[in-house]
Amino acid sequence: MPKHAVVLLSGGMDSATCLALAKSEGFIVHALSFRYGQRHIAELEAATRVARAIGVAEHRIVTLDPAAFAGSALTGGGEVPKDRSDHDIGHGIPSTYVPARNTIFLAYALGYAEVLGAADVYIGINALDYSGYPDCRPEFIAAFESMARLATKAGVEGTGQLSIHSPLLHLTKAEIVRQGLRLGVDYGLTLTCYDPSPDGLACGHCDACTLRRKGFVEAGVVDPTRYV
Amino acid sequence: MPKHAVVLLSGGMDSATCLALAKSEGFIVHALSFRYGQRHIAELEAATRVARAIGVAEHRIVTLDPAAFAGSALTGGGEVPKDRSDHDIGHGIPSTYVPARNTIFLAYALGYAEVLGAADVYIGINALDYSGYPDCRPEFIAAFESMARLATKAGVEGTGQLSIHSPLLHLTKAEIVRQGLRLGVDYGLTLTCYDPSPDGLACGHCDACTLRRKGFVEAGVVDPTRYV
Repeated sequence: MPKHAVVLLSGGMDSATCLALAKSEGFIVHALSFRYGQRHIAELEAATRVARAIGVAEHRIVTLDPAAFAGSALTGGGEVPKDRSDHDIGHGIPSTYVPARNTIFLAYALGYAEVLGAADVYIGINALDYSGYPDCRPEFIAAFESMARLATKAGVEGTGQLSIHSPLLHLTKAEIVRQGLRLGVDYGLTLTCYDPSPDGLACGHCDACTLRRKGFVEAGVVDPTRYV
Repeated sequence: MPKHAVVLLSGGMDSATCLALAKSEGFIVHALSFRYGQRHIAELEAATRVARAIGVAEHRIVTLDPAAFAGSALTGGGEVPKDRSDHDIGHGIPSTYVPARNTIFLAYALGYAEVLGAADVYIGINALDYSGYPDCRPEFIAAFESMARLATKAGVEGTGQLSIHSPLLHLTKAEIVRQGLRLGVDYGLTLTCYDPSPDGLACGHCDACTLRRKGFVEAGVVDPTRYV
């Protein structure tokens, strides 16, 4: 019997690749996205396009109350850093950091998995080309998994061990691009930018755009991204 | 300099006691409540009364999108169990279980603490008179704390070790009542019931009411609860 998995889907290249990987591993995939703050609405549209193109059983979009995050750059506070070299990216914690974001995303994914009776959650974080976020580190994912196994009915009743899969964790952006292309991901549908234009074009200068460009260059593949 | 703490506040007797305890330990307290589903609106009114009576720096109420929890009794699905003996309560996982609830609550508390620069989070769960929820067990709290220390800027930068305090964990309901009365908690302001009437009276028959009644009887104190 095919098993179900919950996949966190931001609409960026990493989560799109992660969704394709989960599906290629035989799971019936359920995508989970979040609406929080203004800047990322274009990403949600991308997530919807990606979910449709890859083919999911369901795509839930959960609205996070911005009251909980008051005081953070991604939801409207500070400035998104621009034109940092990829050497600078990953050093220090950027102002785009949202407090406890991956903890909250994974907590919801855990709830959704439990509703589905699923024991598998996918998250497309990666630790090599990462952007300095504490909750993108392998040890964070391992700790979340340990916690999650104690948090749920399945853990208590011994009916299933929850697994948090982060298949991109040790890949470079170039390797992610190659994996995705092998699985047929259309990166033209994705949006990774922290500061897209109102019509959903990538800014080309934020940390996410810098890392994305570099990934396509290093993979030797044409970047289908539409930049401003 | 006084330190800040985030306290999860449902409006029930346990969280009210927990708030009073955090304050008595010298913290400037910030209460955090959640709006999810219909049944607990009266509890939020209780939380607001309690926060005001005990005195908090801020009381944030965060709305949880019910889309994330579809399929659970507390948000409108199944029946709330009635008139179970306190022997039955705690055996098996009740239908009032909300998937990953405490994980989600604590994840938000972690984000709020980080916004405040606070390193202390209080949750009023207890493991003795508990109701069979996997995420009310001591080992869950310990695992969440380990995860939280890896999830946050403070953890990475070494500026503060996050602590999850659960001071009621090993108390009986009677001991909770005695602690609260010593600190001046007005339990007449609280509401613990899983299935209150539209005007906020306790049903007197759900698991939460059964445990609450027992607590007051065993503490030898008059129960100020207004039952239907």
